[in-house]
Amino acid sequence: MNSTNVVIGIDIGGTNTKLGIVDREGNLLAESAIPTRAHEEAARLIARMNEAITGMTGSLANLTVKGIGIGAPNANYYHGTVEHPPNLSWEGVTDVVGLFRTYTLLPVAITNDANAAAIGELIFGAGKGLKDFIVITLGTGLGSGIIVNGQLVYGHDGFAGEIGHMTVEDEGRECGCGRRGCLEAYCSATGICRTVFELLCCRRAESVLRDVSFNDLTAKQIFEAALQGDPIAREAFAVTGRILGRKLADSVVHTSPAAIILFGGLASAGELIFEPTRRALEDHVLNIFKGKVRVIPSGLKKGTAAILGAAALIWNELENKL
Amino acid sequence: MNSTNVVIGIDIGGTNTKLGIVDREGNLLAESAIPTRAHEEAARLIARMNEAITGMTGSLANLTVKGIGIGAPNANYYHGTVEHPPNLSWEGVTDVVGLFRTYTLLPVAITNDANAAAIGELIFGAGKGLKDFIVITLGTGLGSGIIVNGQLVYGHDGFAGEIGHMTVEDEGRECGCGRRGCLEAYCSATGICRTVFELLCCRRAESVLRDVSFNDLTAKQIFEAALQGDPIAREAFAVTGRILGRKLADSVVHTSPAAIILFGGLASAGELIFEPTRRALEDHVLNIFKGKVRVIPSGLKKGTAAILGAAALIWNELENKL
Repeated sequence: MNSTNVVIGIDIGGTNTKLGIVDREGNLLAESAIPTRAHEEAARLIARMNEAITGMTGSLANLTVKGIGIGAPNANYYHGTVEHPPNLSWEGVTDVVGLFRTYTLLPVAITNDANAAAIGELIFGAGKGLKDFIVITLGTGLGSGIIVNGQLVYGHDGFAGEIGHMTVEDEGRECGCGRRGCLEAYCSATGICRTVFELLCCRRAESVLRDVSFNDLTAKQIFEAALQGDPIAREAFAVTGRILGRKLADSVVHTSPAAIILFGGLASAGELIFEPTRRALEDHVLNIFKGKVRVIPSGLKKGTAAILGAAALIWNELENKL
Repeated sequence: MNSTNVVIGIDIGGTNTKLGIVDREGNLLAESAIPTRAHEEAARLIARMNEAITGMTGSLANLTVKGIGIGAPNANYYHGTVEHPPNLSWEGVTDVVGLFRTYTLLPVAITNDANAAAIGELIFGAGKGLKDFIVITLGTGLGSGIIVNGQLVYGHDGFAGEIGHMTVEDEGRECGCGRRGCLEAYCSATGICRTVFELLCCRRAESVLRDVSFNDLTAKQIFEAALQGDPIAREAFAVTGRILGRKLADSVVHTSPAAIILFGGLASAGELIFEPTRRALEDHVLNIFKGKVRVIPSGLKKGTAAILGAAALIWNELENKL
């Protein structure tokens, strides 16, 4: 009986770590989740991950595991490390790939969430068949992964693809990175909340959002209000898309992508965010690129995208080595 | 007797077309120049180029020509074409590589000037040994070539690397591309002239530049005035570098280059432009990139850089195919 080649995809989050068995077609054959326990040391989490992997693979016959791919915040692909992660108490630089060596001789690779998303789109999603595209993840922050000539751009130090930290406005909004005016302070789940409060000050229109505190407001509430026709909520999406499209015009002149894929929470607002983004990109981009760059949604199934992206990292490596 | 492998490098300019025989070490073994005759049809220029090549190669014994590399404005590497060149009367799209096929079966490749400069730095110049860097050509305009993982970024359509058309300021200076506020309207030989006139309005300081008309002013005059301590000229360089460094911080977050190489006329002003560029880049770039990106001058000899870049295009292809 033939066995099926599979890889393990792992998504390390601040609260939960999700694991899955993924075949070359992107089918999730089994999945599992364990608490990350952010205050525990890294070696313990990796031990528990390996128990979870054994549990998953043991339950399925005729599988050949070809490698383990991991997505994690602040991961460095070149070094196999996680460096100063914002949501985990791991101090300094943790050699995650090295710690895996206790358990397996299979290929193990790690990259950050947005890069994993980009490789996931390349192998399984909306980037299949494309050689040049950019993935923008619109979550709490704005992450990005850039594909050039069919390969992820890592840069000389492994940290390329930080489009969220282009500057929209000198002396603009304070950003989590310590600087001011970064794109992610405007175009992200938290950015659109900040925009709502700016609009509540500027506009006199009635809005259900006038009854919500800054700390209580979520991007989801803004989305729901916008669907009800709330003028502040609708304008917040329009402003967010306008800023995003304008800055993506600066990205396009770098790598001339065939597509920009919007991924993550805010992207699920659909045309509310896509339409103004597309329009601003077309309005601002250099003439030779006009009408050429599609702005499209992710092709990865929601909920499994992070595991698929991490798994794709290994499928991609195995194929590039052939 | 052993023969030496060489390639032909050709730089098509608006006035003159320069040709050279270049070995793998970047030595220019022979060179030649013919008038471009911008109003003549393309096929005639290519016939004259081939005569010039025959003339050059005939005079040197024991050479084996491995290919022909061409740098030209508005060239498209993927299609082998020159499209709507600004300084030549060739209409529409000209299949330059195709026209060469009448004369040779050797590999022929064409790319734009800034891309040729980037490959020239990679093979022969300041980018030797680096896998990720950006070349900025500061001439009449601002061109750029981006190297990622040892390869030039062409993008899906062959037009990547138009950093000169990032937006510095909405509703800013009119740019030759028809848009407004582009980086090249500020940071280029023409851009610094415009900056001088802005400063002449804003400042009350004496300056020799107050006696020069807009049409007469050149970047060279500004450089010479700056060397004499002229306050307007010095400030013009400081402003130019500040804008350039600030926008290069946005480029760095895309591809995380180990170096940015400044090339072309304005770059020969040395520290007058390098110092403010470096400082603004460091001040504005995301923390994880601080102190990592060197801003350095070209490693190609002035005057021969364009021919070397065009020749490098072929050396690079030959080696990637091995």
